[in-house]
Amino acid sequence: MDTTYVHGYTAPEARRLGDQADTLAELLHAGTAYPAGSRVLEVGCGVGAQTVHLLARSPHARLTAVDVSAESLAEARARVGPGVEFRQADLFTLDGEYDHLFVCFVLEHLAEPEKALTHLKTLLRPGGTITVVEGDHGSAFFHPRSEHAQAAIGCLVRLQAGAGGDALIGRRLYPLLDAAGFAEVRVEPRTVYADASRPALVTGFTRDTFTAMVEGVGETAVARGLATADGWARGVADLHRTTGPDGTFHYTFFKATGRAS
Amino acid sequence: MDTTYVHGYTAPEARRLGDQADTLAELLHAGTAYPAGSRVLEVGCGVGAQTVHLLARSPHARLTAVDVSAESLAEARARVGPGVEFRQADLFTLDGEYDHLFVCFVLEHLAEPEKALTHLKTLLRPGGTITVVEGDHGSAFFHPRSEHAQAAIGCLVRLQAGAGGDALIGRRLYPLLDAAGFAEVRVEPRTVYADASRPALVTGFTRDTFTAMVEGVGETAVARGLATADGWARGVADLHRTTGPDGTFHYTFFKATGRAS
Repeated sequence: MDTTYVHGYTAPEARRLGDQADTLAELLHAGTAYPAGSRVLEVGCGVGAQTVHLLARSPHARLTAVDVSAESLAEARARVGPGVEFRQADLFTLDGEYDHLFVCFVLEHLAEPEKALTHLKTLLRPGGTITVVEGDHGSAFFHPRSEHAQAAIGCLVRLQAGAGGDALIGRRLYPLLDAAGFAEVRVEPRTVYADASRPALVTGFTRDTFTAMVEGVGETAVARGLATADGWARGVADLHRTTGPDGTFHYTFFKATGRAS
Repeated sequence: MDTTYVHGYTAPEARRLGDQADTLAELLHAGTAYPAGSRVLEVGCGVGAQTVHLLARSPHARLTAVDVSAESLAEARARVGPGVEFRQADLFTLDGEYDHLFVCFVLEHLAEPEKALTHLKTLLRPGGTITVVEGDHGSAFFHPRSEHAQAAIGCLVRLQAGAGGDALIGRRLYPLLDAAGFAEVRVEPRTVYADASRPALVTGFTRDTFTAMVEGVGETAVARGLATADGWARGVADLHRTTGPDGTFHYTFFKATGRAS
């Protein structure tokens, strides 16, 4: 078990990642389709939550998906089925040559995302592309406003930072890819906005993705003294409150692309 | 001079509003075009920054634009030219019947936005539509991160609140329109994201719109003790810093539509 993965490796967490990927598939994967026969590497595929969408959108590409966790890979294999080659490997020791790299919700967990991108660039043929998708918890705001809910989100950011990651990395994708030497770097915000007129997003994103993610670190946050049990409970209750008939929720993901020269 | 307008009535401010409207015209006006002959009322047109875009996109509609300030209206007339009927009126005493209402950057300044929307609804024929556009300063985040810059933005939010308004109103548009009795309420986020690959947005939005808006309330913020002169200067400098080659800036506007039943 990799203790640096702030969300942990549990069945509810795997289910959350699946819900998240399905709800967000169109938002995050729109614009990403790879040509038949092209060599595509998904770096840090985890339980395969994004892999299924990569395969659905690029059924004739040659997809390889790697992750450092054997446990996650076993789940990914079961989830995705045939059509993808799975490999267990650490990002920093990966080798091979690929036409395209896909890296989703990985850099946020790394202490040295610049170093990771610099290494990943060596895996691309000249002219090959990288696609990076990350969230940014600083983009989360909602109605009704709640200091307790903001504080709970702040705990998640601090836990991620404590584990060496950065839950606010979305805003940094442009400078990170640029510094790693990628050309034609382009970053797009992909914004999720949920209110009662979009019930599938209210349940699929606000409740089952974002709030579930925050709830998932509650015990750790309280155990480490980042929050009181009462404050935490109130923060989570206030996040649930934003799924009510007059509630709204906003979150922005960032999707970046770059080219190896 | 209406002292409740937090940004004040000055020549640089009028220029800022013009810059803002031009840079954001496509983002905010996309999807808004009114049929020939339809009766359209722009409520709170100010110096006409949005009026020019309404006219350009709906040249054959019957446009009326109202504002409470005679000074702003004079400037709006000069800016827009013929094609729009201008009227001086207070939002709460407006009468007449219209097919469509357009309300941009107005509710944020009002102490009773619900009451305003309820009154505006009486101006619409059955089946007529309202379009409301607002920002939300809680959506502003950037790289490099800066507590000073966040504090400066916080001052703007507090000044707006002190004047009876709400600089965080974007997230509330759905419940506000719903509570006012509009049907088919639909709210879309319209996100601005700027980095060095989008130089027109870096200058037009990050520098000349958002940072200029924050800078414009500096004297007031310091005079009222919301910030020290040093802290303020550092906050503004840090906002300018986000326009550098490795900087990024994110802001979300909300565009809402609803129908009178």
